Amino acid sequence: MKLKHVTSSRQFDKKFIDQIFALTDRVKKGKFAKNTLGGKILASLFYEPSTRTRFSFESAMLRLGGKVISTENASEFSSAAKGETLQDTIRVVNSYADIIVLRHHTTGSSNIAANISKIPVINAGDGNGEHPTQALLDLYTIFSKFPAFDWSASGGKFTIAMVGDLLNGRTIHSLSYLLSLYPKVKIIFVSPKALAIPSVLKDHLVKSRIDFRQIEDLDLAFKDADVIYQTRIQKERFTSPKDYKKYFGKFIINASSLKKIKPKCIIMHPLPRVNEISPQVDSDPRALYFEQAANGVYIRMALLLYLLAPSQV
Amino acid sequence: MKLKHVTSSRQFDKKFIDQIFALTDRVKKGKFAKNTLGGKILASLFYEPSTRTRFSFESAMLRLGGKVISTENASEFSSAAKGETLQDTIRVVNSYADIIVLRHHTTGSSNIAANISKIPVINAGDGNGEHPTQALLDLYTIFSKFPAFDWSASGGKFTIAMVGDLLNGRTIHSLSYLLSLYPKVKIIFVSPKALAIPSVLKDHLVKSRIDFRQIEDLDLAFKDADVIYQTRIQKERFTSPKDYKKYFGKFIINASSLKKIKPKCIIMHPLPRVNEISPQVDSDPRALYFEQAANGVYIRMALLLYLLAPSQV
Amino acid sequence: MKLKHVTSSRQFDKKFIDQIFALTDRVKKGKFAKNTLGGKILASLFYEPSTRTRFSFESAMLRLGGKVISTENASEFSSAAKGETLQDTIRVVNSYADIIVLRHHTTGSSNIAANISKIPVINAGDGNGEHPTQALLDLYTIFSKFPAFDWSASGGKFTIAMVGDLLNGRTIHSLSYLLSLYPKVKIIFVSPKALAIPSVLKDHLVKSRIDFRQIEDLDLAFKDADVIYQTRIQKERFTSPKDYKKYFGKFIINASSLKKIKPKCIIMHPLPRVNEISPQVDSDPRALYFEQAANGVYIRMALLLYLLAPSQV
Repeated sequence: MKLKHVTSSRQFDKKFIDQIFALTDRVKKGKFAKNTLGGKILASLFYEPSTRTRFSFESAMLRLGGKVISTENASEFSSAAKGETLQDTIRVVNSYADIIVLRHHTTGSSNIAANISKIPVINAGDGNGEHPTQALLDLYTIFSKFPAFDWSASGGKFTIAMVGDLLNGRTIHSLSYLLSLYPKVKIIFVSPKALAIPSVLKDHLVKSRIDFRQIEDLDLAFKDADVIYQTRIQKERFTSPKDYKKYFGKFIINASSLKKIKPKCIIMHPLPRVNEISPQVDSDPRALYFEQAANGVYIRMALLLYLLAPSQV
Repeated sequence: MKLKHVTSSRQFDKKFIDQIFALTDRVKKGKFAKNTLGGKILASLFYEPSTRTRFSFESAMLRLGGKVISTENASEFSSAAKGETLQDTIRVVNSYADIIVLRHHTTGSSNIAANISKIPVINAGDGNGEHPTQALLDLYTIFSKFPAFDWSASGGKFTIAMVGDLLNGRTIHSLSYLLSLYPKVKIIFVSPKALAIPSVLKDHLVKSRIDFRQIEDLDLAFKDADVIYQTRIQKERFTSPKDYKKYFGKFIINASSLKKIKPKCIIMHPLPRVNEISPQVDSDPRALYFEQAANGVYIRMALLLYLLAPSQV
Repeated sequence: MKLKHVTSSRQFDKKFIDQIFALTDRVKKGKFAKNTLGGKILASLFYEPSTRTRFSFESAMLRLGGKVISTENASEFSSAAKGETLQDTIRVVNSYADIIVLRHHTTGSSNIAANISKIPVINAGDGNGEHPTQALLDLYTIFSKFPAFDWSASGGKFTIAMVGDLLNGRTIHSLSYLLSLYPKVKIIFVSPKALAIPSVLKDHLVKSRIDFRQIEDLDLAFKDADVIYQTRIQKERFTSPKDYKKYFGKFIINASSLKKIKPKCIIMHPLPRVNEISPQVDSDPRALYFEQAANGVYIRMALLLYLLAPSQV
């Protein structure tokens, strides 16, 4: 069944993923008509600024010949003075564009939008909810080194360590749901207890029979991880500065970490990073986060083609 | 005489309106060369954010093959630190673009801009002044149901009820000026006394021999109205919360209102709405406000063609 | 040697200037293929709003067939919550665009960006540092009236008076460095002592054997100046309101100034102006500031061609 909207990585099955990744490969090689989306308009509807994500989608649209109308100020729609509902906003923007990319501060808002919209809606991050296109580009980046988790170095399961604020990190949530499709995968969740994955995700992984562990010490994951997926920990999440200090040091990847990880382990990060990956790591061939960001444009080009030019897919 | 700028609905005569509406019909049917405005640049100069209006103009420009430079932050030009006059800003933007769409917080600013500008200026709302393109799309929407007010259901005059803050509502002002060209029209203004239409508009209607009434109870208008044009009332306009409460209930259109209005009456709203039209009304075939918003893009496409590609008109 | 980035006017030599000005002449006459930069994307990365400068670059890019992704909100990248370094931001934006136009509040930031970037970076103003494209358009505007400073009216040196806050004015700095290539030029710097040119620039001019004077009274410059380059003085730079009052009156160009300057003297200003040039001056044929702003688009088109389409140069 063809997807009309992209709101959650729970929508994706293996067939869809294979199809999108094949399309991404094609796009990355420049194999597409430059004006495929000529005459189409993408509306960037950002209720909170995220220049990086917005640029990634807009660059994707422009490279396919499409056009863009854009705001990082969409909360003005629902401001005290004007007070419009998201539903009304989406209905009106339906008249202006052919596809909506929505970034919103409230979990679940992209579903509200998709329910009312006649044109496709892509969730570009909703509160502490999901960020499904990030999950796709993350998996695409992993597969670029370990196609279909089919690697020789590791005997057992393919081990992915996810590190940081796993409670609030929507990229963590979206990627975990995606990985739950692959029984070969084992996940090590590394976080302080207070920032562990939400129970709904935990239940999903149990139900999907995914092998996972929850630990509090990153060093313990170094030996086994084929992928280390680092994320930001925000100081303000901690009630006690002592707790923050205690954990923070254990979650930093630096030059000495590079000696402890596998020779083929890849280090990923959805960016932006603050200091959880030291700049010394950048030049190591295993540091893949900038390549990961670059893949974001290709994945989004593929998704735009899938949603707006199905005959091209 | 061909218009160079669009600053007030008082500039429009019936011939102009017929011409623009014919062009809008053509555009709505897709009968235009996709690249008619290729090479032209529209500058969105918004001194206050209005993503809806800005998107409507920018979508119109892009659909005609034109390009857009855009700011919702234009007040930065005239900020304390930089302190530039509107005249200087307009002169400079003349070098960057082929047409300016201006949204400004001060009534009359679009005339100041038009006086200095060598390229066309379109008023996209100036303070409590006017919003002429909104008036055109409003009238176009009415004519889509009642061509030239030529309807059979009604015996006497064609009755339009305008509801809400009629003092400050610039869409009300612009539409009233436009309607004053049509002697078949009768207007019922529904508002609290403190928010009645400005005397300059009242004088104009008297002089134009337009039949109008001013009342304070929406229910009294339901029986006669062929069009109900609802607008927002802002709580902060009232000095006494008691007054607000007293009036507010009388100005809401909800499911029970639907039983009182004519079977062919259309309900309009320039949007955004807060709670002055209940969502229960949306599915009624007489609710025309989202169609009205969609017509905005077509009207603006027609105006851009009129101003920038006269040979197409 | 071909420039890869444009970060300082100290990068420019006479050969480069001649080449860019010849290209600007061509562009100004419309002699370029409309779609030369088709498929290329410019990223406007503005850490502080400057709609004028941003519009100038974006208009240049669009007129050459290129596309634009844009933010005036780039400081969000380095905000407390997200805390990304400029280096990381530039690396990521490299994936989204083919050229970066950077406006930043910190002096030297464009060099930091250029050092890490694989795609060209143009400095569109960095703190109190430089604004090299402004210097180019300034010199181009002077040459449009006095080609290669080759004028007959003046016996001795070609005299340029620069007026205002010479300490903090980055356009002053960039233009002075550029002028230091031309031994025919004499500069009169007019400012309060507290706002005189920085010593590093002074040393550079001495070393370059440029004839210059520093005075505090604009009237003394009127007799000799072939160009008066006026800039803003910000009240807040003065610790004593008395000092501000004392100087400010001496730095205004008004109707009576017009009687004191040479018949062919040109008056320039990088804009925006507040009240340092009276509007009465605008209609004088010697007032060249709006033409100067218009030249900005042509200079930037030439630079974009130089950096992105070298075969066209």
